[in-house]
Amino acid sequence: MGPHPAVADVRRAVRLSLADVPSGALVLAACSGGADSLALAAALGFSAPRLGLRAGLLTVDHGLQEGSAGRAADLVRLSPSLGLDPAEALTVAVGRAGGPEAAARDARYAALSAAAGRLGAAAVLLGHTLDDQAETVLLRLARGSGTRSLSGMADVSGLYRRPLLGLTRSRTREACEALGLKPWDDPHNDDPAYGRVRVRRDLLPALSAALGPGVPEALARTARLCRDDADALDQWAGEVHDRARGPGGELSVSVLAAVPGAVRRRVIQRAAVEAGAPASALAAVHIEEAERLVTAWHGQKSAGLPGGVSVVRRCGTLIFAVDNVSL
Amino acid sequence: MGPHPAVADVRRAVRLSLADVPSGALVLAACSGGADSLALAAALGFSAPRLGLRAGLLTVDHGLQEGSAGRAADLVRLSPSLGLDPAEALTVAVGRAGGPEAAARDARYAALSAAAGRLGAAAVLLGHTLDDQAETVLLRLARGSGTRSLSGMADVSGLYRRPLLGLTRSRTREACEALGLKPWDDPHNDDPAYGRVRVRRDLLPALSAALGPGVPEALARTARLCRDDADALDQWAGEVHDRARGPGGELSVSVLAAVPGAVRRRVIQRAAVEAGAPASALAAVHIEEAERLVTAWHGQKSAGLPGGVSVVRRCGTLIFAVDNVSL
Repeated sequence: MGPHPAVADVRRAVRLSLADVPSGALVLAACSGGADSLALAAALGFSAPRLGLRAGLLTVDHGLQEGSAGRAADLVRLSPSLGLDPAEALTVAVGRAGGPEAAARDARYAALSAAAGRLGAAAVLLGHTLDDQAETVLLRLARGSGTRSLSGMADVSGLYRRPLLGLTRSRTREACEALGLKPWDDPHNDDPAYGRVRVRRDLLPALSAALGPGVPEALARTARLCRDDADALDQWAGEVHDRARGPGGELSVSVLAAVPGAVRRRVIQRAAVEAGAPASALAAVHIEEAERLVTAWHGQKSAGLPGGVSVVRRCGTLIFAVDNVSL
Repeated sequence: MGPHPAVADVRRAVRLSLADVPSGALVLAACSGGADSLALAAALGFSAPRLGLRAGLLTVDHGLQEGSAGRAADLVRLSPSLGLDPAEALTVAVGRAGGPEAAARDARYAALSAAAGRLGAAAVLLGHTLDDQAETVLLRLARGSGTRSLSGMADVSGLYRRPLLGLTRSRTREACEALGLKPWDDPHNDDPAYGRVRVRRDLLPALSAALGPGVPEALARTARLCRDDADALDQWAGEVHDRARGPGGELSVSVLAAVPGAVRRRVIQRAAVEAGAPASALAAVHIEEAERLVTAWHGQKSAGLPGGVSVVRRCGTLIFAVDNVSL
C-alpha cells in the first residue's frame, strides 16, 4: 500500500524542488512546527536519502511567546525520527523596525541564513503554501505597485526554496494527520492585529463568497503569471539600459523614447537606483516625473527623486546627479 | 465664483479626454441617468462648445425594468438644457447569451455603436469611474488569467472613451448634487444576483477593513500598471512572432527558445489563434503543453489545442495544423 495521497503530494513537491541539488549536499527544512512546515520537514527526511542528499532541520525561537523554547526543543528531539540530522533551534532577538511581522521575519531569515552558511547547506526549504501565496498577492494588491509586487513569493530565491506553493494548507494538515504528526497551532495565526491574519480570516472567505470557489488557486496563478511577465520586462529593461547608458551613467533620450512606457520607466528606475536613490523610497510619481523629461519635454528644469538625486535633460540625455545641498 | 470642485473635476476629466478630437466633431455621452453618467453628460454639454465640438446624448432602454422607457424619455427631454443635442433613446432587446450582465452589455454596445455610426460621432463617452475599475480588477482577479485581464477597462477603446476612470463614484454624485441634477438609482445596482454588486457591496468594504483605506485607488493603479506591462509584452511578442514565423505560419524553435517564457507563450498563443484555435477557448494549460515542445522536448507526438488545432515539432519548427478528424 502506498502512502496517503496528501503525504505523496508533499513528497512529490519536495522531490521536484530538489531535482537540481548536487548529490551528497545538505538540505535543511525551516520548521515552525505548524502543519505546513512539519509536513515539509517529514517529506524532506523521507525523500532526501532517496535522492542521495542529506537532510536537516532548523527551527527559530523568536522568544515572543511563552513556551517557545520548549516547543523548539521538542522539534529538535523529534527530528532524528523524521530522518533529519542535524537539527538546531536558533534563538533570535526580534527588534521593532518596520512593524512586528517584518521585524520577526527579518530576524528569522538572518538566523536561518547564518545557520545554513555555518552548516554548509545547499538549500533551505520553506513551508509556504498556495494559501500563503494567495494571501501575499492580496496584501500586495492593496499597495497597487504592479506586476513584480503581485508576483508574490518566488519558488526559488537564492538559498531558499518553497516546494509547497502549489499545495493548499489543508493538504499539509492532512499529510500530518496521516503521518501521526501533531502540528502546533501558532496563536499569532489567529491574532487580527496582523494584516495577514485579517486577510486569511475575513478577506479570503469574503472573496470566495462574492466571486465563487477557486479564489486562492486563481490568486496563486496570478502570481505565477505576473512573475513571468515581470521577469521578461526586467530582462528587456536591462538590455535597453545597457544600450541607453553613456559612460557617465546618463541615458540616451532617443533610446528611451523608442521603447514602451513600461520598459522606459523600468530603465529610469534602474538608473535612479544606480545614482543613489533608495529603491524603497522611489514611487511611481517620481519615475513618472523623470519620464516626462522624455515624453513631455518643454524645457523643464529637473525632476527630483528621493535620496537627493535629481534628473536633468541635457544634450539629448538624462543626467542623474546627487544634489550638493543634500550631501 | 468658480464651479463646485466636484463639477470642476468632472469637467477637467472630460476636457482632457477630448484633447485630440478634431474641431467640429460630434461627441456623444452614453447616459443611464445614474450619477456617474449624468455628471459626465452635463460636463460634456458644458465643455464641448468651449472645445469647438458638438455634444449629444444616447441612452439605452433595455426594457428589463418597469418605467425604463419613461426614464429614457425624461433623459432625452432633459438633454437640451444640458447642452446636448442630438439626444436619442435606443431600445434594445436583451438576449440571454453569456448570462444577464453580458447579454445586456452586448446589446447596449451594439446599439451605441450603431447610433454613433448613424450620427457620425467621433467618440462616445462612458461614465465608468475609479470604483468601477476597482470592481473590474477584482472580478478579473478571480479568473487568475494574468496581466492583460488585470488591466481592467481602457481609457480609450476604439470609439469609446472613459474620462472618469480617475474619479470616484462619490465625486460624480457630488457633482450632480452641486448642479441640482437628480440621478436615477438603478435597483440592479443593489441586486446581489450580479457578481459586480457582490463585489461592490460586500467585497470592497471587506478589503478596506482588512487592508486599510485606499484600496479602490490601489486597484485602479494596478490596472494602469498591468495595462502598460501587457501592452509592452504584446509588442515584444509581435516582433518575435514576425521573426519566428516561416512562410507556412510555422514557428522557429530556436527563436522561441531564446526569449523569456512570458513572451514565448504569447507568441504561441498568437500562432494558435492564427491557425484557427478560438481565443476564448485557449487556456494556459493548452499553451503550456505546446510550449513543452520547445522547452521540454523528448520526442512528444503533438500538443492538442481547442478548435481541432494541433501542434507538432518538425525540422526545428512548430507546425500548427487543423486536424482532419474535426473538419
